[in-house]
Amino acid sequence: MDDKKRRLRTDYPFFLTSRTRWSDNDQYGHVNNAIHYHLFDAIVNTYLIEQCGMDPMKSEHIGLVVSSFCEFFSPVAFPDVLDLGLRVTRLGTSSVTYEVGVFKSKASFQERNEVSDMVCAVGGYTHVFVESASRRSTPMNGVLRSNLMKLAEQTPAPAISKL
Amino acid sequence: MDDKKRRLRTDYPFFLTSRTRWSDNDQYGHVNNAIHYHLFDAIVNTYLIEQCGMDPMKSEHIGLVVSSFCEFFSPVAFPDVLDLGLRVTRLGTSSVTYEVGVFKSKASFQERNEVSDMVCAVGGYTHVFVESASRRSTPMNGVLRSNLMKLAEQTPAPAISKL
Amino acid sequence: MDDKKRRLRTDYPFFLTSRTRWSDNDQYGHVNNAIHYHLFDAIVNTYLIEQCGMDPMKSEHIGLVVSSFCEFFSPVAFPDVLDLGLRVTRLGTSSVTYEVGVFKSKASFQERNEVSDMVCAVGGYTHVFVESASRRSTPMNGVLRSNLMKLAEQTPAPAISKL
Amino acid sequence: MDDKKRRLRTDYPFFLTSRTRWSDNDQYGHVNNAIHYHLFDAIVNTYLIEQCGMDPMKSEHIGLVVSSFCEFFSPVAFPDVLDLGLRVTRLGTSSVTYEVGVFKSKASFQERNEVSDMVCAVGGYTHVFVESASRRSTPMNGVLRSNLMKLAEQTPAPAISKL
Repeated sequence: MDDKKRRLRTDYPFFLTSRTRWSDNDQYGHVNNAIHYHLFDAIVNTYLIEQCGMDPMKSEHIGLVVSSFCEFFSPVAFPDVLDLGLRVTRLGTSSVTYEVGVFKSKASFQERNEVSDMVCAVGGYTHVFVESASRRSTPMNGVLRSNLMKLAEQTPAPAISKL
Repeated sequence: MDDKKRRLRTDYPFFLTSRTRWSDNDQYGHVNNAIHYHLFDAIVNTYLIEQCGMDPMKSEHIGLVVSSFCEFFSPVAFPDVLDLGLRVTRLGTSSVTYEVGVFKSKASFQERNEVSDMVCAVGGYTHVFVESASRRSTPMNGVLRSNLMKLAEQTPAPAISKL
Repeated sequence: MDDKKRRLRTDYPFFLTSRTRWSDNDQYGHVNNAIHYHLFDAIVNTYLIEQCGMDPMKSEHIGLVVSSFCEFFSPVAFPDVLDLGLRVTRLGTSSVTYEVGVFKSKASFQERNEVSDMVCAVGGYTHVFVESASRRSTPMNGVLRSNLMKLAEQTPAPAISKL
Repeated sequence: MDDKKRRLRTDYPFFLTSRTRWSDNDQYGHVNNAIHYHLFDAIVNTYLIEQCGMDPMKSEHIGLVVSSFCEFFSPVAFPDVLDLGLRVTRLGTSSVTYEVGVFKSKASFQERNEVSDMVCAVGGYTHVFVESASRRSTPMNGVLRSNLMKLAEQTPAPAISKL
């Protein structure tokens, strides 16, 4: 069984540290569920731009999100600093599925006298690459695919079966 | 098979019409995927507040999102006006699963000479109700549950098997 | 003195009705201050697109915000429905200053047994039009400017001195 | 004249580094104007929580924004990392005015072969402190005011007249 709640930092080969914002918290004092998807977009597109040479305003191929999901295990809240981990769980010719693990940064969980470093949420989405003009599905170019492949290869497989 | 792409307006018993905002569109000129989850929160909480007597700042019980998902079939874009449809697909003692269908309002799709009225995205989430102080899981109160039950009963079941 | 707190609905020639969203409320249970600027962008760009023929993804000229401001008089909160009023307070050759008044819709303020219809916030911003490619300042085209002029002419002047 | 465009990093005694997000960029490929106000809220509330002992969900006194403003000098864009600088430009008994300067982090502006380190935007807002229950104006408590005073004293005064 794929028990996402047991994900570890070592399950993710690429990390981005990101601050929460005051307005991320909703009336219940926690980061709103929808904000997690903004964070997924932040780490995925950072990887695509900085590691895969994508330029969103100029690239001939762009990635469109066709499905997304998230499971929430424990709340995070502003002013927590978050460590986002990224991995690739499926890589096709024209599509890729990412998974993101959301952890509190060490400072954030120590400050609250929390002893463990459990994953707070796990989610992700599937990108289908299309021609930016026609929006028709297209195979990824070589640089993009090889850098996503690198991420896929660094992803423990089957990640959770090791536990 | 649960082919969400074939959802019709008649599959949803409660509707809310909502405008998109300029900042909902991302660099690709479409409403960003994460914004859909903000819209899910808008219709679900409107129903809970206006139909079920919930007061988020005072209620002893609040709903926490434990998982969410969305499938995207065709893009929507500011300044589209959207018709959001809500239904309940599972109702337990202390938890409920909502599904939301996102349609363009009639004016928005006619304006673009689009002939059909296909659902643009289908998603939703599961609320677990907890005591607002302790954040421990708790059965829903009677008013809340009976109004969610009303929604569940008005939801075609099995919704998609009729098609 | 320009006492923005005394603005009336009749001070604004163009209106847009917009729902608040659950995630607009912050931890204090009110629509966060920054959300007001998202609403300003919503009504201004709706006017530019629907009344002035602007197409953000194709237009040769685009409007960049060079300064913005807002004064907050009384809180609004999800699930309030808001009536946004738009007027033009300054119109140059290549720049325009908009002012937006934020009112609760009649249903929202009656529901709370509020008797009056006071403006809740007044803000706005200045757009400088630039060539979309070079981002250099440029005179507005004729259709755009004449439609903004129409709005300027319908704006009471000096709006507040009548009070 | 208060030429905000000439603000330097040394004009701000407290800094917070914050990543932009994919969804911060609008259709024009730059961080949307309204997002700047979310960033102002992030740095101000981080200072209040971490340096002044404020707990938004429990404090008897909370700060409400009564007016805000921003001037935009040059665009920032995801995936820029931003250095936000905070200073206090007016401190009363129950109210305080903050100013925030938005700079690209060194890595972000070097990456684009930009030689200078100009401020990209300067804005801020005025907080009036109120009792959280009654929402009536109240003098700040001692810890809060002394920590805001510390910030005010570290703010160059008159900041810009030195230039």
